[in-house]
Amino acid sequence: MLAELKLELETDHPDFGYFQSSNLQGVLMQRIDKEYAAILHEQGLKPYSQYALGGTQKEWRIKTLTAQAYERIIHPLLDDRFQEFVIEKKQMHVRICGKTVRVTPYRQLLDEFYSDRCGRYLNLEFVTPAAFKSSGRYVILPELRYIYQSMMQKYGAATADLQLPDEDLLRQLTACSSIVQYRLRSTSFPLEGVKIPSFKGEIGIKINGTDTMAKYAGLLAGFAEFSGIGIKTAIGMGGIRLLSCLRKESQNI
Amino acid sequence: MLAELKLELETDHPDFGYFQSSNLQGVLMQRIDKEYAAILHEQGLKPYSQYALGGTQKEWRIKTLTAQAYERIIHPLLDDRFQEFVIEKKQMHVRICGKTVRVTPYRQLLDEFYSDRCGRYLNLEFVTPAAFKSSGRYVILPELRYIYQSMMQKYGAATADLQLPDEDLLRQLTACSSIVQYRLRSTSFPLEGVKIPSFKGEIGIKINGTDTMAKYAGLLAGFAEFSGIGIKTAIGMGGIRLLSCLRKESQNI
Repeated sequence: MLAELKLELETDHPDFGYFQSSNLQGVLMQRIDKEYAAILHEQGLKPYSQYALGGTQKEWRIKTLTAQAYERIIHPLLDDRFQEFVIEKKQMHVRICGKTVRVTPYRQLLDEFYSDRCGRYLNLEFVTPAAFKSSGRYVILPELRYIYQSMMQKYGAATADLQLPDEDLLRQLTACSSIVQYRLRSTSFPLEGVKIPSFKGEIGIKINGTDTMAKYAGLLAGFAEFSGIGIKTAIGMGGIRLLSCLRKESQNI
Repeated sequence: MLAELKLELETDHPDFGYFQSSNLQGVLMQRIDKEYAAILHEQGLKPYSQYALGGTQKEWRIKTLTAQAYERIIHPLLDDRFQEFVIEKKQMHVRICGKTVRVTPYRQLLDEFYSDRCGRYLNLEFVTPAAFKSSGRYVILPELRYIYQSMMQKYGAATADLQLPDEDLLRQLTACSSIVQYRLRSTSFPLEGVKIPSFKGEIGIKINGTDTMAKYAGLLAGFAEFSGIGIKTAIGMGGIRLLSCLRKESQNI
């Protein structure tokens, strides 16, 4: 099962935004049991993602990809005694003024997308900085191959459907898709004094090819709302929202 | 030799901008002799580019890549009697209130770039919508391979140095370059009732590899200010400006 916990936050500190996500990772680790934290630390593809959003409506979203991760990560955060926390590094005191949980069985995700929810257009918003890594270098343009590869890896790891992405399917999916609309800019994500090159913004993808292919792309995108896309999604990078489907008429705005 | 004619324009019509560029192409063709216009019409890679810019300071820039194109295209436009024109389709009356010509010998371009003008960072602004075409499809993300390929093709055609781009050099140049900064969005370019998918914005490129490679990239970019980049540069697409070189410190803004 997939789950998302949205915490609505308040703080008097002016310096709250996505760039606090890696500090929130620290807050998260303090709340879960040490043994599980150690297991997570070892894991390559982690069964959760999380990110913070600033602005007038501050929030922290924690998403889990397995029943175990829900149990071990989201469950402790639902405890009524968890009403505030402090980001020590910044001496930032944060109050939690709302908690909402949304749980989605994988079955529901499959049903939703295999019943044509999105047709042949996917519109993704990268709400926190995203990046890919290839041959040791950061990739900061959202090339479709990297997007799909990341989604397939994370989906495979979470569901144990596939341990490695099927190279042939990845190639087909990339070949039959194209980015038809976008608004993007490069940015950076701060992590332990280093700035990781990344990007933010929106892209619209059109999927040609078979209906099955289009539905599979939709399923992956639906899953990616929980897993994030690209590198360091457990530390706050690559958070996405699946926006309403694009209409054909609007693709050239 | 390379040349650019900047015409400063005034019009009371509210509808002037880059999207009038293909109509200005018509105005241009009326001013040059029919025989030469016919030759241009036949040519694949044309020895000139042009585009319009709207806003408070309206302008029309016409750029030529050979001495012959300067003679046949820019020279007639310098005639003192050419002080106004009408875009018939739009019933738009346009006055020319300033003309500036800038002529750059190829030798000067080579000297400028081979003396380290830009170091290892190139910052390009696509001031009018740009696009590439590959396997019959429009490419609207500025992939480096397509940028360099377009520059090399146009440079080769204008200087007759190379009739076809050297595939090996193109591969090397692409491999040693990366986009380190950008702000881009998709858009469309109107042409005879069709909207051509395209993009606008800025990109910063870093060139690793040998000094010679970095200087060659700089030379191509300097040339591209005259030729434009990508498809339909004679009709107003792919107009670029080479901005001041990026500093390393600012690459993660």
